[in-house]
Amino acid sequence: MVRTIEYHELEPLASGAWILGTGGGGSPYLSYLNMRARYAAGVRVSLIEPEALADDDLVAVVSSMGAPLVGQERLADPEFATRPVRMMEAYLGRRFRAVMSVEIGGGNAFQPLLVAASTGLPVVDADAMGRAFPEAQMTSFAIAELPMFPLTLADIRDNEVIVSRAASWKWMERISRKVCAEVGSIAATCKAPRTGAEVKRHAILYSVTKAIELGRAVREARRRHDDPVAATLQEASGKLLFRGKVADVERRTTEGFLRGSARLAGLDEDRGMGFEVAFQNEYAVGWREGRVVVTTPDLICLLDSVSGEAVGTESLRYGQRVSVLALPAPAILRTPKGLANVGPRAFGHDIEYTSPFDDAEAGP
Amino acid sequence: MVRTIEYHELEPLASGAWILGTGGGGSPYLSYLNMRARYAAGVRVSLIEPEALADDDLVAVVSSMGAPLVGQERLADPEFATRPVRMMEAYLGRRFRAVMSVEIGGGNAFQPLLVAASTGLPVVDADAMGRAFPEAQMTSFAIAELPMFPLTLADIRDNEVIVSRAASWKWMERISRKVCAEVGSIAATCKAPRTGAEVKRHAILYSVTKAIELGRAVREARRRHDDPVAATLQEASGKLLFRGKVADVERRTTEGFLRGSARLAGLDEDRGMGFEVAFQNEYAVGWREGRVVVTTPDLICLLDSVSGEAVGTESLRYGQRVSVLALPAPAILRTPKGLANVGPRAFGHDIEYTSPFDDAEAGP
Repeated sequence: MVRTIEYHELEPLASGAWILGTGGGGSPYLSYLNMRARYAAGVRVSLIEPEALADDDLVAVVSSMGAPLVGQERLADPEFATRPVRMMEAYLGRRFRAVMSVEIGGGNAFQPLLVAASTGLPVVDADAMGRAFPEAQMTSFAIAELPMFPLTLADIRDNEVIVSRAASWKWMERISRKVCAEVGSIAATCKAPRTGAEVKRHAILYSVTKAIELGRAVREARRRHDDPVAATLQEASGKLLFRGKVADVERRTTEGFLRGSARLAGLDEDRGMGFEVAFQNEYAVGWREGRVVVTTPDLICLLDSVSGEAVGTESLRYGQRVSVLALPAPAILRTPKGLANVGPRAFGHDIEYTSPFDDAEAGP
Repeated sequence: MVRTIEYHELEPLASGAWILGTGGGGSPYLSYLNMRARYAAGVRVSLIEPEALADDDLVAVVSSMGAPLVGQERLADPEFATRPVRMMEAYLGRRFRAVMSVEIGGGNAFQPLLVAASTGLPVVDADAMGRAFPEAQMTSFAIAELPMFPLTLADIRDNEVIVSRAASWKWMERISRKVCAEVGSIAATCKAPRTGAEVKRHAILYSVTKAIELGRAVREARRRHDDPVAATLQEASGKLLFRGKVADVERRTTEGFLRGSARLAGLDEDRGMGFEVAFQNEYAVGWREGRVVVTTPDLICLLDSVSGEAVGTESLRYGQRVSVLALPAPAILRTPKGLANVGPRAFGHDIEYTSPFDDAEAGP
């Protein structure tokens, strides 16, 4: 099925994607504004169900790569987002049937919409992370060991690079990351093309719809003066881990990533308790009273306790009142192969994957 | 005309190219050994005159890119040298007619021979520098403002990159340099393809023959127990600037380059005098008694005063007895556009191009 994404779905998509960004992925705000302007000018983008793809359809997997803060300093631009897609078509000598995002979390939720606005291609209701992650090998496609090349990359000048082969997903990440950093830490990319069959089998399905519904639930709660945090918990089957305010933030930018941690002091039922959260772009591990209670790939979301708005790792600050939520990770990320790519050790934490959802699963 | 490069020409090519490397470009020794082994196995490589190329022939311009010292740690390999050439043919959908080096100075003199040994393509008797230079925009093709893309690059693993567009020669240099550094500071590349017409019009012609003849002159002098330094001066129309021994060397590896300077204390007629030479991979500026007497693009060559062997910037050491020679630069490098790309200011020296050959030209 193919349907039009309506104007009133854009704002929910932005706020839902920002929650699924788990603190990273960059705010979708500027891309959302750009799409709103396009919609006001009469453009409409359509959403295609993964099942509507033919097995041999070719799908462009797009992302804006780089430092999220640089992304915030440049307006999103459909033509720029589309260049690597056209490069890939020229390189392959084939046309794409549809376009999808590498990650639904954060600003990249809108990247395929930008491409769709300039090409007319439909956006696939799927992504390859079900959240945001900082590196190329942290996708469901990498976990499924699908080929990682070719990749096309365009910068804001007139530089274009094709990584036509890579020795591994990690090498693809290293090479494309260096090029991206050299051209100013912002690049539009088209990742290894996927067939319709690969998308249906290995993507995280219906994540665009999930983001829209999550954003809509938050908006509805706000409109009814209900608790938007509770609405997120209910809509996304999440668990509340902690309520508190930010007591301390330690943050450093190293090797192209934003790393650090934050300490929270409890409020309400959690008064007198402490919570610590560590991040590499996204929130990666949470400790309650010194004990690990949640790790990546579970989605660790910090929301403003009043507005329900997601709080990014780069904007977290002293005194903010936040609620820490865990949302369940897509199943593929929780497999042994998945955990090798996106579990806590992939982020330098020498601990086992820990999930507040395991107890429930182990229950009667 | 196409002729076979004979076995007895390989050693002269190596020693001539090392002199034309002006201290940089990496020693041709390992590549020479590799070609000698190929020749012993019956392989022969042919040399084609630029005039024998048709205007629309396509010529591969190859180079081994990276840190010369890393190049010394890895044996040269025809298959590795050939990979970017095959990548370029696949990318363009066209076959090459011949192969040439981007620089005759140093190890890259042998790069097209390695490719020729594995493909059967003839080597063009030309290059794009007439010496060695450290950066991509320092070629006669860049000075002539020919297009700088596409470029193909392969590493020793299974990584392959195509820079399909670049905003400028400098951007091509920056992007390809970063990729090269990331894959271990050694990569085989195929630069922007050139037509036969472009080679005939804008390359430095007959530089392979020049290197062979220079090396042969040095060898003959040694065989006759003549002065090999004098033989180089005569064969290459050079000027002797100084004879001395190395009193001090200051060397640092920064931004992927070997930078530094050396002070020489005079011997023989130059006893009591001092000479200083600054380098960035290659020797760039020479001061005699504090006064600039030679700058890039003139070839500043330091030769062992006894053997006549070239002395590289990375192996220059205290106590060595060296002769400082200037050899005239190809005319294109001495034009205003040429000096903008390869004059002393391109290497951070805020001085005018100074040449010991200017006096002669200004004479009666």
